[in-house]
Amino acid sequence: MAATKPRLAVGLDLGGTKIQAAVVDGDGGVLASHRRDTNVAGGPFTVVEDLIDSVRTLLKFDPEGIRAVGVGVAGQVDTAAGVVRSAPNLRWSDVPLGETLQRALGLPVFVDNDVRAATWGEWRHGAGRGIDDLIVLFVGTGVGGGLVSGGRVLTGGHGLAGELGHLTVVAGGRKCSCPNRGCLEAYAGGWAIAERAKEAIEADPKMGRVLRERAGAAGVTAREVAEAAAEGDPLARELMAETGRYLGAGAVGLVHAFNPRRIVLGGGVIENNPHLVEAVTSAIRDGVMPVFQEGLDVRRAELGGEAGVVGSASLALGRLGG
Amino acid sequence: MAATKPRLAVGLDLGGTKIQAAVVDGDGGVLASHRRDTNVAGGPFTVVEDLIDSVRTLLKFDPEGIRAVGVGVAGQVDTAAGVVRSAPNLRWSDVPLGETLQRALGLPVFVDNDVRAATWGEWRHGAGRGIDDLIVLFVGTGVGGGLVSGGRVLTGGHGLAGELGHLTVVAGGRKCSCPNRGCLEAYAGGWAIAERAKEAIEADPKMGRVLRERAGAAGVTAREVAEAAAEGDPLARELMAETGRYLGAGAVGLVHAFNPRRIVLGGGVIENNPHLVEAVTSAIRDGVMPVFQEGLDVRRAELGGEAGVVGSASLALGRLGG
Repeated sequence: MAATKPRLAVGLDLGGTKIQAAVVDGDGGVLASHRRDTNVAGGPFTVVEDLIDSVRTLLKFDPEGIRAVGVGVAGQVDTAAGVVRSAPNLRWSDVPLGETLQRALGLPVFVDNDVRAATWGEWRHGAGRGIDDLIVLFVGTGVGGGLVSGGRVLTGGHGLAGELGHLTVVAGGRKCSCPNRGCLEAYAGGWAIAERAKEAIEADPKMGRVLRERAGAAGVTAREVAEAAAEGDPLARELMAETGRYLGAGAVGLVHAFNPRRIVLGGGVIENNPHLVEAVTSAIRDGVMPVFQEGLDVRRAELGGEAGVVGSASLALGRLGG
Repeated sequence: MAATKPRLAVGLDLGGTKIQAAVVDGDGGVLASHRRDTNVAGGPFTVVEDLIDSVRTLLKFDPEGIRAVGVGVAGQVDTAAGVVRSAPNLRWSDVPLGETLQRALGLPVFVDNDVRAATWGEWRHGAGRGIDDLIVLFVGTGVGGGLVSGGRVLTGGHGLAGELGHLTVVAGGRKCSCPNRGCLEAYAGGWAIAERAKEAIEADPKMGRVLRERAGAAGVTAREVAEAAAEGDPLARELMAETGRYLGAGAVGLVHAFNPRRIVLGGGVIENNPHLVEAVTSAIRDGVMPVFQEGLDVRRAELGGEAGVVGSASLALGRLGG
């Protein structure tokens, strides 16, 4: 081993509920990490102070080795300017995050969308390693993703590409959180699974008894549906089988549009229902034109909740060059 | 005007029913053209002889100015090798078209998929000029298209990207010509419009009388539905309104996935039903998240049936370099 100094970056993952931070090496390894709640109510200044504090805490780990900071933000980001244009969960608009952090920290700072950063993480250091044509689909409360085509993460005209949860899979179907109807998210997102479960319980209280008792007064969530399905409850199993069919329908369409060599599935709903990976695989086997299937596989994401910090750090090191 | 020699190319558009050929200049202008039927039954050698003959006829137009030949083929093409991997409508597999033409003609030959060539044509010389993030959707008997992202036409892992007609818009819906159900093409493609019309006529013979009489013994086609709709027939109008809703649902999803700045709509179904452009525009206005709508427009394709020859010639000149 040559005694060169390490090339490290701090990755930040800024969401509406928590801030994750980590020291990441050039191979995507997490060397140290830090986590705190996001004080949305405190406003942008408080959140930015917290971000600075998180980075300063981690800088102690290797002050010389850390060359840059990458931030993934749950919102619309102008990556060239480092400005967060709009982040509804944070109640931010037009926050010059890159410049502010850079001034405070004395390090180059690169800001990007959180899902795109996580896509980058899975691509470079996770389940998409070495694949230049890749779809990453994160199925959590919401459904988002990223598209790698010809070795580039697609950004689109305004840096918004990758809202794969808002592909229409049922024209005129269920109302989504976006203005559209019948989006993939409106069936397979955690909030939609919960909503479908509630409707099913109301429609057939006898069938829904197990789910209702498990959930209690707080009401059923996607997690309870997953747990009940794992234990064999017929209603929960049918709800998750349906979820698999909608994810499969979306994936089949994406394969035809993009011709990827791999689909990576991640996010809480996949982690709680790993059989969904098999459901998507079999939907592709049955529904995709044969020539598109050659050399195509479906895999589970590898980085879990660290995809965001690993990806934003890796993006920062990449943009730093050298 | 400098007295430089013109830089021209011959563009070929090879489909299952006809061969189109044209001399195209660097601005996408068609200077001469030629058309013949495709003798599919004659086998690859006959078709290749016909292609060579078409090019030789056009070479007389300007033997010195024509520097290259571009071919768009309705099938799966290995562009690097110039090999047509699979072209079901031609009944071809693994035909080394580029090398064969190059040897016969003594000119550089570049082979690509026909729809991608047409996408390139609309992008460089048609309704997509100057737009680096663009979706081109051709709605004819089948539905296909092309994706331009960050100034590149996406090819995908095996050169197959752009089968936008095989995005699922109704999970578990109508049987498609591909193995999937509920594809956009299974609702909006010409064959599907005809199929839906036949079902509607059978379901309500009284409502369907106008369509049935217009079509006669040969059976209704998408063209008759378009004509009857233009004349105000209620059933035909409803069929085309539905077609617009499915196209809109597909377009809304594509906008969310890709974040384009423009959608270009072409192909026979659009040409016969120009109001579909308005239907897609309004579906986007109603169904797409507001941030995606900034600076986004929907336009009708400009090159019509010449998109293929213009695009393949333009691709050839581009690959030639200089």
